[in-house]
Amino acid sequence: MNATQARPLAFTLGDPAGIGGELIAKAFATEPALTAGCFVAGDVAHVRRAAAVAAAGAARTSGRPGSTGPRGLEAVPLPVAVIERPEDAWQVPPQCIPVLQVGPPTPGDALVRWGQVQAQAGRIAADAVTWAARAALRGEVAAVVTAPLHKEALSAAGVKFPGHTELLQAEAAAHLGRPVAEVPVRMMLASHELRTVLVSIHVSLRQAIEAVTPANVRETIRITHEALTRSLGRPPRIAVAGLNPHAGEGGLFGREEIEVIAPAIDAARVLGIDASGPWPPDTVFMKARQGDFDVVVAMYHDQGLIPVKYLGLEQGVNVTLGLPLVRTSPDHGTAFDIAGTGRADASSFIEAIRAARALAAAPALSA
Amino acid sequence: MNATQARPLAFTLGDPAGIGGELIAKAFATEPALTAGCFVAGDVAHVRRAAAVAAAGAARTSGRPGSTGPRGLEAVPLPVAVIERPEDAWQVPPQCIPVLQVGPPTPGDALVRWGQVQAQAGRIAADAVTWAARAALRGEVAAVVTAPLHKEALSAAGVKFPGHTELLQAEAAAHLGRPVAEVPVRMMLASHELRTVLVSIHVSLRQAIEAVTPANVRETIRITHEALTRSLGRPPRIAVAGLNPHAGEGGLFGREEIEVIAPAIDAARVLGIDASGPWPPDTVFMKARQGDFDVVVAMYHDQGLIPVKYLGLEQGVNVTLGLPLVRTSPDHGTAFDIAGTGRADASSFIEAIRAARALAAAPALSA
Repeated sequence: MNATQARPLAFTLGDPAGIGGELIAKAFATEPALTAGCFVAGDVAHVRRAAAVAAAGAARTSGRPGSTGPRGLEAVPLPVAVIERPEDAWQVPPQCIPVLQVGPPTPGDALVRWGQVQAQAGRIAADAVTWAARAALRGEVAAVVTAPLHKEALSAAGVKFPGHTELLQAEAAAHLGRPVAEVPVRMMLASHELRTVLVSIHVSLRQAIEAVTPANVRETIRITHEALTRSLGRPPRIAVAGLNPHAGEGGLFGREEIEVIAPAIDAARVLGIDASGPWPPDTVFMKARQGDFDVVVAMYHDQGLIPVKYLGLEQGVNVTLGLPLVRTSPDHGTAFDIAGTGRADASSFIEAIRAARALAAAPALSA
Repeated sequence: MNATQARPLAFTLGDPAGIGGELIAKAFATEPALTAGCFVAGDVAHVRRAAAVAAAGAARTSGRPGSTGPRGLEAVPLPVAVIERPEDAWQVPPQCIPVLQVGPPTPGDALVRWGQVQAQAGRIAADAVTWAARAALRGEVAAVVTAPLHKEALSAAGVKFPGHTELLQAEAAAHLGRPVAEVPVRMMLASHELRTVLVSIHVSLRQAIEAVTPANVRETIRITHEALTRSLGRPPRIAVAGLNPHAGEGGLFGREEIEVIAPAIDAARVLGIDASGPWPPDTVFMKARQGDFDVVVAMYHDQGLIPVKYLGLEQGVNVTLGLPLVRTSPDHGTAFDIAGTGRADASSFIEAIRAARALAAAPALSA
């Protein structure tokens, strides 16, 4: 493949009050081969400020302005190149951040404050995701890597979706001309040692229990099977976790395993899917880590995310399965507590770029 | 302290269809100093069979009968010494298992089958725990280390308590002449890198949510503070997890953090307890592992147990906090799938003995 003809990858800015822009600037600064042909969908003025923050962080680390920080990160801000179309990303030289302005440009004197929930920030974040989703669905970008947004800011901006996944799902449904219910998606969290796919995500634990239905569990197993068969090149060994302690211990502490989860597993096995369970939640992730399974289907958000995050956030990647587009993101939030300080760690964002390239078959330039 | 005058430690046999007896036999075989002055409360015939299984496992490992297996485990079964009173444990020579018969002795031809739920096995397991709890409450033993029992077998035997903790709590309440509700206990799970104390344990996830009440969360924080202040010798830094994803993200996905958990933390802080939170559940355990906290108060069983068990079961220890007796146990179950094979790993049981000695201030003989 001639890489200059490959479709570009879009990075969405995320909440401009958070660390998203800094992660992006650090990725462009430290990974020129990986980020060639990538661009930012977002707001130019906020990207420019983030580039300055990333550089200031490098200057503090290396001791003096102008010196080279760790892993090629310069203490001079990377320049921003405003582009009009995704494919223009290929014309921008290395050590330059291509930005496609989405929505009205923010004046330099009206930037959002760092580390606070602001409707303006939620709006900028949502607009970038909507734009990038549509570009991906039209085939103009190969994949979307989303920087973190803040759900309260999204809500303050009047966005009716609680997070990225629901927003992308709605765009995909509109594109396909189907009801949202017919475009089921699932979140997969992956580290180097564990993959987990979640039956539900951003709902209360009470609502998550209600979401453990035969259809939802079956769909999660099916989506997991199809997506991992593609990315592994063979059918995955799927462990399905129980909902209750000890997977209900034979019905003593809850009957969802007997009434909902086991039948869903049986239905999947009838289709030839290598699914097993329901396994006791407190040990199934350990077993998967030890190599017994390729992936664990988790019944709710924290059941799956606690083990993926336990050993550290640096390598975790979030992948949305079931969509007609490739979307990955880092495994952490906006980090409002350190936003604007230059101290954000771009490792997970960079892993998310790698994962997006692998899933989209859009290999990086060789360095 | 003259160790021969110290109070003995009782090991309860656990479910005789499981690996409990084998763990005990391996602990006596491989840790003579640690187990001096310890004895088994249980059934003599089942302990004898378990000692043979442990020795057979050692024989397979070392290649021939009579040879010495790993860590001093002999391929010849350890003899059983029947004792009448706990203090007789001190008179039994090393490489011998002191057993105090609890309940009617099982004839050698009426042993339970390995690896199956049986009412007979549940009855033997429950009787040993009840006896040991009473002995500890009377001050006749310094601590109780419980081998795993099987909750379905307990239920089949007509025992009205779902597990060890509830059984011990009822015994303590009876001993103190108080209602059970006035002897609140909590389960702590500890590995070398993480401690977690659970608001509720063996109930369905639906019931666990109902158990997240102001009184229960407050009590858990208080019990955690008191127990860890004793064992650490200073007030612990307590992180309190949220219940919902992202700790509810400001009320967007559940209000228990705002209405229940945060007020309980505030109440604890008024008492001078170093408690913080509610923290997002998916990252608080990672933070504790990295050293930010001494212990995490978890809102339900799997929230706390998934991270403790994620890196492996070998080192995990279960400690019951809040009781007027010391009780520890290994961090795993009866392992019916390998019961009777000689392949059980006694590491966690041995760690539980060490933890019990530390908590009871009953040091082992020097080796």
